[in-house]
Amino acid sequence: MSSINIAKAKRLRSTPYTSRIEKQGVTAYSIYNHMLLPAGFKDSLEDSYYHLKEHVQIWDVAAERQVEISGDDSAKLVQLMTCRDLSKSKDGRCYYCPIIDDQGGLINDPVVLRLNQNKWWLSIADSDVILFAKGLAIGKNFNVKIVEPNVDIMAVQGPKSFSLMEKVFGKAITDLKFFGFDYFDFKGAKHLIARSGWSKQGGYEIYVQNTESGLKLYDYLFELGTEFNVKPGCPHLIERIESALLSYGNDFDLNDNPLECGFDKYVNLDSNVNFLGKEKLKEIKAKGISKKLMGVKINHDQINVSKAIEIRINSKRVGELRSGVYSPTFKQVIGIAMIDKPFFTVDTKVEITLNNETKTGVLCNIPFV
Amino acid sequence: MSSINIAKAKRLRSTPYTSRIEKQGVTAYSIYNHMLLPAGFKDSLEDSYYHLKEHVQIWDVAAERQVEISGDDSAKLVQLMTCRDLSKSKDGRCYYCPIIDDQGGLINDPVVLRLNQNKWWLSIADSDVILFAKGLAIGKNFNVKIVEPNVDIMAVQGPKSFSLMEKVFGKAITDLKFFGFDYFDFKGAKHLIARSGWSKQGGYEIYVQNTESGLKLYDYLFELGTEFNVKPGCPHLIERIESALLSYGNDFDLNDNPLECGFDKYVNLDSNVNFLGKEKLKEIKAKGISKKLMGVKINHDQINVSKAIEIRINSKRVGELRSGVYSPTFKQVIGIAMIDKPFFTVDTKVEITLNNETKTGVLCNIPFV
Repeated sequence: MSSINIAKAKRLRSTPYTSRIEKQGVTAYSIYNHMLLPAGFKDSLEDSYYHLKEHVQIWDVAAERQVEISGDDSAKLVQLMTCRDLSKSKDGRCYYCPIIDDQGGLINDPVVLRLNQNKWWLSIADSDVILFAKGLAIGKNFNVKIVEPNVDIMAVQGPKSFSLMEKVFGKAITDLKFFGFDYFDFKGAKHLIARSGWSKQGGYEIYVQNTESGLKLYDYLFELGTEFNVKPGCPHLIERIESALLSYGNDFDLNDNPLECGFDKYVNLDSNVNFLGKEKLKEIKAKGISKKLMGVKINHDQINVSKAIEIRINSKRVGELRSGVYSPTFKQVIGIAMIDKPFFTVDTKVEITLNNETKTGVLCNIPFV
Repeated sequence: MSSINIAKAKRLRSTPYTSRIEKQGVTAYSIYNHMLLPAGFKDSLEDSYYHLKEHVQIWDVAAERQVEISGDDSAKLVQLMTCRDLSKSKDGRCYYCPIIDDQGGLINDPVVLRLNQNKWWLSIADSDVILFAKGLAIGKNFNVKIVEPNVDIMAVQGPKSFSLMEKVFGKAITDLKFFGFDYFDFKGAKHLIARSGWSKQGGYEIYVQNTESGLKLYDYLFELGTEFNVKPGCPHLIERIESALLSYGNDFDLNDNPLECGFDKYVNLDSNVNFLGKEKLKEIKAKGISKKLMGVKINHDQINVSKAIEIRINSKRVGELRSGVYSPTFKQVIGIAMIDKPFFTVDTKVEITLNNETKTGVLCNIPFV
């Protein structure tokens, strides 16, 4: 792992929780949406992995910024940006929505919250969706207002998150369905809370707008959480790869389209709604995709992926590894790879060079099983 | 200073020079346009400051990404995005161009390179201008192609950069005028080189497209540079604040307009060209700005600005410090601050609290003299 420091600056924004997580022993940061995203604590990667799968963690994920789109044309603009049909969407629900350009290239993969028909939040991955939305809205002369609201998400993740949150917010919070959201009271302040989060271990995301109350809530969760063995944490490399939670900029970007990334169920080409890249994606679908995101299992016990690594068959390049980690569950390296046609079939044997040694691997579906 | 590591990932892109600068002892990274930007080497901040002002440094500034806009409507799109009149722009010239939205809010402040009338590069600061350009172009139905080309800038900065570059490229390179660019040969490969860079110490930026040749050139510059005391370096906090080279995301952002940032000479409201926010800026100009970017000198010997710090007069908030550093030349802290009307006048005395102690300061014009 790199042991090079991050150089702080106002441009790499702190979050309301930064001073707390630094006291709690954060050891590494990533940058995400021009903001600090904790990337490790004192516990080892494996220890925090087992902890997340057994107990409960509080995550500072304020870097998941919101793009708020409101106004008469807001529904039209949001729909134009995503290949997912939102015509039957409901208030109080979250929707995972690939955002694409007119060529079908992926711009982001936010969770879209429909606050109401004329007010939407796009809870974004790491790219400036606000600029794309502004450009489109200006170009189309849409009647919308587009801002980044003051929202700093803290996530409560892990199997014991349900018990912890019930202790704070009461029984009602456990009635929240997956990808539902509602407002819940904490000592007189309302917080928007969704049953969601960037792990498959269950939990909630608290969209904190009232910073003062949010900080009290942060401290209170740690106070009440002692009996559930609560710890600070962050999106977890092993857990997210095992669960195939794809990461924009790592696993896919503007040069990939949603059909190549296995987002087929969020690509509603037969719908009546109007979105960018629809005709282009129809063409691609008719012709067949030329590359595909696959899982890969590699016979090795360690890896650090800081850039794409070539994947080969008989010394010929057939794709690239984009994320990877040693999985203590699978007892080998697992990763996410973009594989060229016609090689993207399950059980295909591949080669990869790590630290000047050639290792063997096999392609598989994701999530890993 | 923070001693928290950066967590590397493919999403925080390496540059072609990364392995070299890590061998050369980089100690800190910033992230800029989703890419690693070196932020410090083994030498102290002051040592590298004096070195930059006396000798020559090679900088990995590949993070200054290019947005390439080409096609029949490219000139129209570039002009639409900037308040600077580009109607008389010439091929082979660089133009510093604030990019604003329809409300006059600043989106970026790139150096725009006119390759020809139908092909432009925007050498951007830290925001996804490509997404704004794409949104606008799609919305306006412009006939353009917008891509991020494979260009990784290395900068040669400092007073001895002229002698070093002359040794490599011959006399012709010294004929290049400030903000001019042309193609120069290095061992059979052509490189676009501009007389520019993010310091006021003179120098060049080499827009490397041929990576293999660029890496050879990198090594060759260090080889030939021995006699000029060449060192690796990076944009320098002290030098850039003294020189008032403003930093997007630090000193200004979407919530500021170019008139508030002292960019008046790049705001051509009386021109005939059509750009976003023109009417809005006319209104603002007529009414007068409500805040202004100023220099501030503070009676103290150290500072780290990782978020905006309140500036007060008689305990009342009148603005915020956005960048700051101890200057060995001025023997005090100097900084860039956004100050509210009517307090933004030179020689105004202000207060600022640093590490729980109130310090006094005085407002001044920038650049510092």
